[in-house]
Amino acid sequence: MSAKRIATVTPVSEEAATGKVAAVFADIKATKNITFVPNLWRVLATNPDHLELVWTRLKAIMHPEACGRASKLDPLVREIIALAVSATNGCAYCVNSHTAAVRKLGLDVEALGEVMAVVGLFNTTNSLADAYQIEPDILPPLE
Amino acid sequence: MSAKRIATVTPVSEEAATGKVAAVFADIKATKNITFVPNLWRVLATNPDHLELVWTRLKAIMHPEACGRASKLDPLVREIIALAVSATNGCAYCVNSHTAAVRKLGLDVEALGEVMAVVGLFNTTNSLADAYQIEPDILPPLE
Amino acid sequence: MSAKRIATVTPVSEEAATGKVAAVFADIKATKNITFVPNLWRVLATNPDHLELVWTRLKAIMHPEACGRASKLDPLVREIIALAVSATNGCAYCVNSHTAAVRKLGLDVEALGEVMAVVGLFNTTNSLADAYQIEPDILPPLE
Amino acid sequence: MSAKRIATVTPVSEEAATGKVAAVFADIKATKNITFVPNLWRVLATNPDHLELVWTRLKAIMHPEACGRASKLDPLVREIIALAVSATNGCAYCVNSHTAAVRKLGLDVEALGEVMAVVGLFNTTNSLADAYQIEPDILPPLE
Amino acid sequence: MSAKRIATVTPVSEEAATGKVAAVFADIKATKNITFVPNLWRVLATNPDHLELVWTRLKAIMHPEACGRASKLDPLVREIIALAVSATNGCAYCVNSHTAAVRKLGLDVEALGEVMAVVGLFNTTNSLADAYQIEPDILPPLE
Amino acid sequence: MSAKRIATVTPVSEEAATGKVAAVFADIKATKNITFVPNLWRVLATNPDHLELVWTRLKAIMHPEACGRASKLDPLVREIIALAVSATNGCAYCVNSHTAAVRKLGLDVEALGEVMAVVGLFNTTNSLADAYQIEPDILPPLE
Repeated sequence: MSAKRIATVTPVSEEAATGKVAAVFADIKATKNITFVPNLWRVLATNPDHLELVWTRLKAIMHPEACGRASKLDPLVREIIALAVSATNGCAYCVNSHTAAVRKLGLDVEALGEVMAVVGLFNTTNSLADAYQIEPDILPPLE
Repeated sequence: MSAKRIATVTPVSEEAATGKVAAVFADIKATKNITFVPNLWRVLATNPDHLELVWTRLKAIMHPEACGRASKLDPLVREIIALAVSATNGCAYCVNSHTAAVRKLGLDVEALGEVMAVVGLFNTTNSLADAYQIEPDILPPLE
Repeated sequence: MSAKRIATVTPVSEEAATGKVAAVFADIKATKNITFVPNLWRVLATNPDHLELVWTRLKAIMHPEACGRASKLDPLVREIIALAVSATNGCAYCVNSHTAAVRKLGLDVEALGEVMAVVGLFNTTNSLADAYQIEPDILPPLE
Repeated sequence: MSAKRIATVTPVSEEAATGKVAAVFADIKATKNITFVPNLWRVLATNPDHLELVWTRLKAIMHPEACGRASKLDPLVREIIALAVSATNGCAYCVNSHTAAVRKLGLDVEALGEVMAVVGLFNTTNSLADAYQIEPDILPPLE
Repeated sequence: MSAKRIATVTPVSEEAATGKVAAVFADIKATKNITFVPNLWRVLATNPDHLELVWTRLKAIMHPEACGRASKLDPLVREIIALAVSATNGCAYCVNSHTAAVRKLGLDVEALGEVMAVVGLFNTTNSLADAYQIEPDILPPLE
Repeated sequence: MSAKRIATVTPVSEEAATGKVAAVFADIKATKNITFVPNLWRVLATNPDHLELVWTRLKAIMHPEACGRASKLDPLVREIIALAVSATNGCAYCVNSHTAAVRKLGLDVEALGEVMAVVGLFNTTNSLADAYQIEPDILPPLE
């Protein structure tokens, strides 16, 4: 990392990657069909075992077809959930990344606004339910 | 509220509701096609103006068709977002309510597990991106 | 603690308190003009140094007059802030405690609804500002 | 958005606003007595219905007098609550905006420190009450 | 689950477990040297793939020796981190579980109080740093 | 603050510090064995009483030996807890500060990865336990 600080640790560059790290970097680019390794993975590579653990989990959950597994969720729905979680947590890196993903999957700016409206609304009702300590309604069992 | 405390304030019962509160209660039951008024709304009714404000927002965002507005999001997707936000915030009332809603809209227990897997995964990557203070990747502009 | 679990550790009872713990317990009851020691303090008493550190800080901030210090904030405003923070964090113990406090200081149920409306509103706008990663407006310097 | 990225979407400029968006922009400037439209609203304008929903709700809660409604809360208290919520959520945009608002309403830097002391204190006690899973004290009913 | 609701879905009992679920349940009990399967795993078992993903990650991170991997962290330190995260998030299930774990590993009630003091303190300074939007100090590079 | 904005208020410079503020600044540098006053303290100094309260708490908890008090926790463990809390809260200032501290105390980049793995893992399980509203396991009493 020559010029600019991008994390509290020095990310591993693609050129410097060897062994397990190089293999994961290659799998990330192939699975996601992208031409660079995003910063998150380059930072996690400072501990190669951790990199592999997070990547294999993300691959299994977000790219089930690449793992030979069927999914009942649409890829866009998975990315919308990722964005909703990231927005609620206020994670800058993740909001940027998942906004790019939902846009790439076809969600236009107006529909993004609908997603955000739902995210914003339930951040209100969550805080209100907690603020008044409201107990769950008694509903018939779910199953 | 005779027997059991369900909030930090005494919820307004359906029988006691008058005026603006009675009108909102009726609209909630009609719009959501349910036979009772959930605790959240009975508690908000302790300030009728606030009840009306929250309900009209929720109706507009979650029931756009009832407001004569088209939506690009599927009702199940909206409820999945609501559940993802509520799970991330750890709101007991809301998790119970939105789990019931997604189940009613047809999401089975295994697919619910897929939703939760995505929620859990990005709570990890959110914390990792923040933990290392990773800066957003430089991507081509979104629009 | 005979019958009922109220925390992950056994709270110190008022009868069992000695030395530093007994002194803090007495100061809590005198300063707050209450007849019992709330659970929070009985639990913190499992580490007497920590009990003292938290109590002396709370006393200084929430009861400045008892420390011979003037304050520019009204006691009700301080408790409203405490409630807003607790509601936003979803802390059951604290929401109950600070709701009781604001009510005791004269905030009626309708005005409590106004406080909650503000809390709920800004949990929405906070999540929206983060969700879109909106940068601060450029304003004239504050000082 | 020519030079500088300020959000994940391109904000609507005041010059480009028409119809519903232009009307809301005008109402924001008139109600808040400001000469520009803050970034939040320009970003929300990418979905005009959402812009209108958030603005009319904020106007009703934060500017009740402009809606012909009486309020039991002082404008400064409302902004202090907004700041406490924003600080607890760690929302950069909102902290900047509401700090400017409380300062404009007369809160000096030292009194701001008192507000922050209360915010900081209860972020501690909230985490401690949760950390030990302390159950609420049994108090006489609030109403 | 006959008598008591313990989650929004019906947990899988040890008796009903087959195939992948039974194998993971057995591994959990062997690795953790416990005689029952905790509720978390019984609930995750409603989606067997998800159960396996979470368990294999937790096993790799929290029980590296069982995976033939060396670790630079002490088991008690790992559980203390788990408790600190759970307390900060206010997760009831996790606080209970990890408090039990640190106690089993020898942390007494007074030392637990020291851990909690650190957790509580930095929930304050975190909120203060965010509340004032304080920028990081410029420090020499970490590496 | 001439050139660069580093907070919503103007930090107090070391040169401008007098009385209580100067004394705390000197104690910070002596206790932490550093040659400058970090931004956090310079900002808190805008309310000298608050500066003193936060510093004396932090000194007592993080530097017990400087207060003549024994501790059962290792200094590195205390800083690891601080980092875990800061990462979970996503506090930029604090993550930077505590990462520097754990590195200075000898934690290398790979071991930091292990800490982060634990932080990331339990942010998942916390959200899953909340997402399914899982009740605590019934365990034998802790004491």
